[in-house]
Amino acid sequence: MATTRTKTQVRKGLGRDLKRFLPSHSVLTDAEDLFSYRSDATADLAQGNPEAVVLCESTGDVSSVMGYAFQHGIPVTPRGAGSGLSGGCTPLHGGIVLDMKRLNHILEINRGNMTASAEAGVVLARFKKELAGQNLFYPPDPQSAEVCTLGGNVATRAGGPRGVKYGTTGNYILGLELVLPDGDIVQTGGTCVKQSVGYDLTHLLCGSEGTLGVITRVHLRILPLPPVNRTAVVTCDSPEQAAALVSDIIAAGTVPAMMEFLTVMAVMLINTFVSPPLPMDGAAYLLLDIDGTEAQVSQDIRTLTSLCLEKKAKDVRVVSDPKETAAYWRGRASLYPLALTMARKLITEDVTVPRDRLPAFVKRVGEISAALGMIIGIAGHAGDGNMHPSMLLPDVTEASLQKAQKAIAGVIRAGLNLGGTISGEHGIGLHKAEFIEWELGKNQIALMKRIKAAFDPKNIMNPGKIWPEGASKP
Amino acid sequence: MATTRTKTQVRKGLGRDLKRFLPSHSVLTDAEDLFSYRSDATADLAQGNPEAVVLCESTGDVSSVMGYAFQHGIPVTPRGAGSGLSGGCTPLHGGIVLDMKRLNHILEINRGNMTASAEAGVVLARFKKELAGQNLFYPPDPQSAEVCTLGGNVATRAGGPRGVKYGTTGNYILGLELVLPDGDIVQTGGTCVKQSVGYDLTHLLCGSEGTLGVITRVHLRILPLPPVNRTAVVTCDSPEQAAALVSDIIAAGTVPAMMEFLTVMAVMLINTFVSPPLPMDGAAYLLLDIDGTEAQVSQDIRTLTSLCLEKKAKDVRVVSDPKETAAYWRGRASLYPLALTMARKLITEDVTVPRDRLPAFVKRVGEISAALGMIIGIAGHAGDGNMHPSMLLPDVTEASLQKAQKAIAGVIRAGLNLGGTISGEHGIGLHKAEFIEWELGKNQIALMKRIKAAFDPKNIMNPGKIWPEGASKP
Repeated sequence: MATTRTKTQVRKGLGRDLKRFLPSHSVLTDAEDLFSYRSDATADLAQGNPEAVVLCESTGDVSSVMGYAFQHGIPVTPRGAGSGLSGGCTPLHGGIVLDMKRLNHILEINRGNMTASAEAGVVLARFKKELAGQNLFYPPDPQSAEVCTLGGNVATRAGGPRGVKYGTTGNYILGLELVLPDGDIVQTGGTCVKQSVGYDLTHLLCGSEGTLGVITRVHLRILPLPPVNRTAVVTCDSPEQAAALVSDIIAAGTVPAMMEFLTVMAVMLINTFVSPPLPMDGAAYLLLDIDGTEAQVSQDIRTLTSLCLEKKAKDVRVVSDPKETAAYWRGRASLYPLALTMARKLITEDVTVPRDRLPAFVKRVGEISAALGMIIGIAGHAGDGNMHPSMLLPDVTEASLQKAQKAIAGVIRAGLNLGGTISGEHGIGLHKAEFIEWELGKNQIALMKRIKAAFDPKNIMNPGKIWPEGASKP
Repeated sequence: MATTRTKTQVRKGLGRDLKRFLPSHSVLTDAEDLFSYRSDATADLAQGNPEAVVLCESTGDVSSVMGYAFQHGIPVTPRGAGSGLSGGCTPLHGGIVLDMKRLNHILEINRGNMTASAEAGVVLARFKKELAGQNLFYPPDPQSAEVCTLGGNVATRAGGPRGVKYGTTGNYILGLELVLPDGDIVQTGGTCVKQSVGYDLTHLLCGSEGTLGVITRVHLRILPLPPVNRTAVVTCDSPEQAAALVSDIIAAGTVPAMMEFLTVMAVMLINTFVSPPLPMDGAAYLLLDIDGTEAQVSQDIRTLTSLCLEKKAKDVRVVSDPKETAAYWRGRASLYPLALTMARKLITEDVTVPRDRLPAFVKRVGEISAALGMIIGIAGHAGDGNMHPSMLLPDVTEASLQKAQKAIAGVIRAGLNLGGTISGEHGIGLHKAEFIEWELGKNQIALMKRIKAAFDPKNIMNPGKIWPEGASKP
């Protein structure tokens, strides 16, 4: 039946068609419902309007939608919480958005195997809380933890401050249930912590931003919850000194769970949260979390303190009170909205460099800021080299946006020149697509496109992401 | 010129052609030189004869050989030390073997970034020793460490006993230099510990067994060397008790660096090395290594000992003397040759199951052994669920080989029925190709074949591996 309709007719009849095989409450087609699915957290990257949203409740739902979309060549964009920062889940060419949040069951927490299995729509914070109640631990901690989903975390290879000691989502993912573009369901990997059976499709999907298939279930490695953690604040005379301390601390063999770089501007904003406020006499700060057993944490704090003082840090303040500790980290997690009290618009970058190159990177960002006359905050997960330089725009004029664009390009080029990468944890989406060739080169992108075609011959999975589109729009 | 020659003419002139663009000492074509390149450590899987071996000295050498091979459609098999256990580097269809052992430079050990970069032919033991001299640590530890190469480790996703706490090669690889089948050179990943830039080709190559491209350089994450390690031997009344203790220990939050499962037969063989010998009054044993700081190790040993005794283990023996410790682990590493004193032939499997399923797996292997009347040793890296059931053949007759084949199929099926995988760390190669469909299903293998074609449209990279060949032999 449908096959004889024109493309326009199919698109117009999309909602009706979907309701033939899905419950009608699962299919949204009203304009006011569709509106909020136009973008992720980067609203200014919204470009397309979805024609239908499916609130998926099972892998079967996803499979049947994909089978239908494959038959008719309709673009499909999977979506977790929509908290991404790169435009990854904007439905650029319309079509169907798969809202995965109702696939929200934690399927197994297996203490004896130290693994957990969950549906893709489980919210990260809920998953972590459920584990913590059993003295278990899943380290990845993007700042959107309260809303973001495990499937979205896998699709973007999400990280967070704890990457320093614990790595990112890619270090925990063991297997997936995956719906391929034609609706076929495959299981990759599994719940074994060791596996060497053919190509590692699990990790290929991790960071694929919805362009290869739809992740419906995840199998994750988990850890015992560290019994103790303590926070330290190191005050430094200059950004370069703070940046250099990062690799000094790592080189000394002390691996903090988190090690954040803050400028005095960021500390001023964080002081909104903490009492007594941090002294503002430093030019830059490191905010550290050290976790482990009591003996281990005490030893690390001693090593760390004497190293920082030996390297002429102004001050090392160790915070033991859990409430005060929580205030620091809540302040850190709120930096983005806090910075919006100072600027009309904020554009956050995600450049990562080898840790020993941080001083050079921080210096270069300062030069770019000075040359353009634009405030660039440089908070970041310095412990793993992942910096988030943020352009603070005083207004949203064409001139400011152009200046910001120059700053972004400059910061990205600076990172690449230092052996870094254009994205540590946010992914490419739309936001960085124009820069990816700088890092990977034409040939590697051509190879990635061939891999995409091996999964998705009709180019219906989240088309238009990761690299700029050529002539082959769907 | 060459393009007008027939396929047979090209193959005959291979050595001469290669010497046109490579130094003549780098090209081997004499039968006696080629003979040892017919197989890896599984000599009985040798099936093809290489027509030429190239002793590569640079990425440029590899690139020029691949460009030539691509032009003429000649199969190419990359080879590290040839210590693999699955026939991965046997040149099934002849052609060129790339011997990578001369690409043996450690390029950088970066303490401030905790990463190292090396050429693919660097021997693992040399790399680990170099790091240890600087109080640094690279955990993966296949039992072939003295000879195997970093490139081979990546190509097979190699593991070893330390997988329990530290994971396998896949947990350390950050980036690669890769020569594609047409000779093009790409850099995947890098030395940043966080990255989310397009598809994760680095991990796709990890475990690809030379079928997608040639790995010429590797970038690896490294760790500070744990200052203390101690060995413990737990004696148990039955294999099931020992197997159950594995997940009990993991569930208690104590993560040993290594946790090996041994039957009394294995302990008898290990006693060749240790003095005083271990008592033979147990039916099964766990051999553990606990590492970390002194405080951490002492606490873990206490937790572990009381847990094992509470669960009615016969004995827990803690070994502090470094010489005695070394003797235990040397004994463990020598199990394979030692077992050959008891049997004419040994076939080692590599099945991995979720850790909490180990008791059921051990029981099932016992039943298979009894039903077939074949001795099956079941030493293994139990701490990560990775068991190596070994068929001990009393003779190499057709009847024994057929019985072993039944045992292998039974053991593999038992592992899969328990949610396990057919290979934890050895890879598929030729040895397991017939079983891979049991685990992955037809559709996932078809997808892997499409990915292979995206890299290698002429099917020249190590053809005939991972899955059984169809009609498309090169």
